[in-house]
Amino acid sequence: MTAAPRPEACDLLIEAGWVVPVEPHAVVLEEHAVAIADGAILAVLPTREARARYAAQETVSRPDAALIPGLVNAHAHNPMTLLRGIADDLPLMEWLQGHIWPIEGAVIGPEFVADGIALAIAEMLRGGTTCCNENYFFPDVQAAVYKRHGFRARVGLPVIDFPTAWAKTAEEYFDRAGEVHDQWRDDPLVATAFAPHAPYTVSDANFERIRMLADQLDVPVHLHTHETAREVEESHAKLGQRPLARLDRLGLVNDRLVAVHMTQLTEAEIELCAQRGVTVVHCPESNLKLASGFCPVGKLEKAGVTIAIGTDGCASNNDLDMFGETRTAALLAKAVANDAAAFDAASALRAATLGGARALGFEGLVGSIEPGKQADLVCVDLGRVETQPLHHVISQLIYATGRHQVVDVWIAGKRKLRDGVLVDVDVAALLANARQWRTRIASIRLT
Amino acid sequence: MTAAPRPEACDLLIEAGWVVPVEPHAVVLEEHAVAIADGAILAVLPTREARARYAAQETVSRPDAALIPGLVNAHAHNPMTLLRGIADDLPLMEWLQGHIWPIEGAVIGPEFVADGIALAIAEMLRGGTTCCNENYFFPDVQAAVYKRHGFRARVGLPVIDFPTAWAKTAEEYFDRAGEVHDQWRDDPLVATAFAPHAPYTVSDANFERIRMLADQLDVPVHLHTHETAREVEESHAKLGQRPLARLDRLGLVNDRLVAVHMTQLTEAEIELCAQRGVTVVHCPESNLKLASGFCPVGKLEKAGVTIAIGTDGCASNNDLDMFGETRTAALLAKAVANDAAAFDAASALRAATLGGARALGFEGLVGSIEPGKQADLVCVDLGRVETQPLHHVISQLIYATGRHQVVDVWIAGKRKLRDGVLVDVDVAALLANARQWRTRIASIRLT
Repeated sequence: MTAAPRPEACDLLIEAGWVVPVEPHAVVLEEHAVAIADGAILAVLPTREARARYAAQETVSRPDAALIPGLVNAHAHNPMTLLRGIADDLPLMEWLQGHIWPIEGAVIGPEFVADGIALAIAEMLRGGTTCCNENYFFPDVQAAVYKRHGFRARVGLPVIDFPTAWAKTAEEYFDRAGEVHDQWRDDPLVATAFAPHAPYTVSDANFERIRMLADQLDVPVHLHTHETAREVEESHAKLGQRPLARLDRLGLVNDRLVAVHMTQLTEAEIELCAQRGVTVVHCPESNLKLASGFCPVGKLEKAGVTIAIGTDGCASNNDLDMFGETRTAALLAKAVANDAAAFDAASALRAATLGGARALGFEGLVGSIEPGKQADLVCVDLGRVETQPLHHVISQLIYATGRHQVVDVWIAGKRKLRDGVLVDVDVAALLANARQWRTRIASIRLT
Repeated sequence: MTAAPRPEACDLLIEAGWVVPVEPHAVVLEEHAVAIADGAILAVLPTREARARYAAQETVSRPDAALIPGLVNAHAHNPMTLLRGIADDLPLMEWLQGHIWPIEGAVIGPEFVADGIALAIAEMLRGGTTCCNENYFFPDVQAAVYKRHGFRARVGLPVIDFPTAWAKTAEEYFDRAGEVHDQWRDDPLVATAFAPHAPYTVSDANFERIRMLADQLDVPVHLHTHETAREVEESHAKLGQRPLARLDRLGLVNDRLVAVHMTQLTEAEIELCAQRGVTVVHCPESNLKLASGFCPVGKLEKAGVTIAIGTDGCASNNDLDMFGETRTAALLAKAVANDAAAFDAASALRAATLGGARALGFEGLVGSIEPGKQADLVCVDLGRVETQPLHHVISQLIYATGRHQVVDVWIAGKRKLRDGVLVDVDVAALLANARQWRTRIASIRLT
């Protein structure tokens, strides 16, 4: 008879009714636990075995909850959270030129960026999002705020062919990009990407420079493209090429490219994206709300393209609800493909987690519940009226669960939400600050 | 100098940061109150005036909340809440014939109907829905359950050309319909409608009889139609007419017709609906999930057709979230119309309230906050991170608010939800019952 092995130490043991690891695909592990040490996942195993094997500093037991990887919002303009609902139900150009740009022109700066992101982080954490792909000005400020809140992010280094509050000339855009990248190059939580605004606002020369630098710095290129039919038509009229063809000519259609929106795609373009390893970030609610068009998710999926999900900014959504966004994506893909089997629940969950991680170049870090990955984890209470009876866990997560059912969130093993309450966030101060921005923005609009 | 007038008695005074009465359209009344007596609305007036004018038995003060009319779910199969997520991501016919119908065949009966509706009522109340248009078998059981819970409903009297657990022959369908109608004809909360299943499952003779009886009994005709392209094509192939043309020949295209789905419509059909006062119930999430098609909401709106919103059943949605459904409707309409200004926030809110009330023939009773109407009211907390800053109340309600922000619900002046907690509902018993149904349904599927 041998002695029982001594239990191994770990920081945290999360026991859940169901663990949905995402990798392997479409698997639901009943009565499983995840052991965590130093912010990383040690093991995923049956709860009974986990209790015997680990001596945990802290144990969280959620028999009615599913544990899933933290959701990755693969396209966000989080400072714009302060503009939530400022201008709705307007044609795109009137919305941009008559409202969003003038207001941004009056408010944009470090304070706007910092306050908007702080509000966004609270909303994202409350709804199970643990990582985002930020795309706005002042990436230096963005990075500092994400870091301060312990929130995982890629911050985009903006490049656009006109002067803004962030930079005036191409040289300045690239200089500042380099500075921000250097500052954050070794951070475990915050990293950078190039973020050229869109094909119609960035010159060939700047795209070529971005391609070279992205290779040198080993970062993604985060780009809005093929968002609307008009964008594609105008590119063709002006340059004789559709945007993707032009980007290909400039060497950017490769596995660094994070192509956001992509509502206008030919079969050949879909095939090109598949061959080159381009990631497509689908922002269904923004595309619907601005009447941009329908991303052919079913076809992209069949072609093997990695799909990620993004909320876009709060001026065109108007929330940062990745549960809602993923549900919309799963529903819409079926009607667009004319196939009720397209983009099934497991594929949608994968897009919202591992797909996003791949888009951000974080697939080695997060996006699935696997030993060695960071413990970015979310507990979702399925024991509520809204998700009962529980015939299928993944189906329920995608088609019936609301973000209010998120009860716990960890990023790199650090608790960010406990029993539905934000940890170390002064919500009253956030709300007071939001009210001040409301007043300030209202006064701008009156002048 | 005259003495101050003596305050008038009322049962309840609800003071809200904002009252959105829906009628008049698109209006937001800041710092207003609603006075209620005997279940009906006495007055809508500024809070300061209300405090001077009324001596209320109870006062509820919600300075951070919007008070809106209770949402009307204009198309539901609520017993199917017990089948939530039982079969997803399947082609329509495989879904129906391989899963839904066989399972229903094994479980359908008074107990299934009663338990499913009880669960649905809890979910609806929690999310701000106070009235629904029910469409299933055993309307006698449905009516009793809605009445017991104090929930407002039209229950459909089913007619279908084949035998079911409810009735075997046309005579039996009509006899039982008459009995149920007689029992509930004078009830203040529960009423009936005819609910012929669909054009492809009901004969000309039965439709003609329904038309005659609906006129006699003064009830709506609640009908799925033009749901899919296949339905329309098959009608044309078999009968030489599209379903709406056939219904018109049979005299049913009039202001009693509550036409559900309507994803396939010509310009002439839209014009016909407008002229005849047909109400269209838009179920966007079901239409997307089953890949049925896109209802042309923007065109219907322009033609002046009354639009209502329905969730459809939990086997094809999979929730009863009218906030989510209305948001999906508002977003989707823009992309379908290729117009970001289509179906704006105020129009979407109107569809989810007064539009639904009109569909159900309840527009004199509910659907807006007006003196004389029943006090079916919902308080929505807008003071949360998800809906801050608050630039526009109606925009926030449609594009950013989740159903979890509903804090209070009244039906006919009776409190149904208080601080987000259901009143007089044994949630633990409901959940235990749902778990039993899960086990029972799982065992059916194994045989």
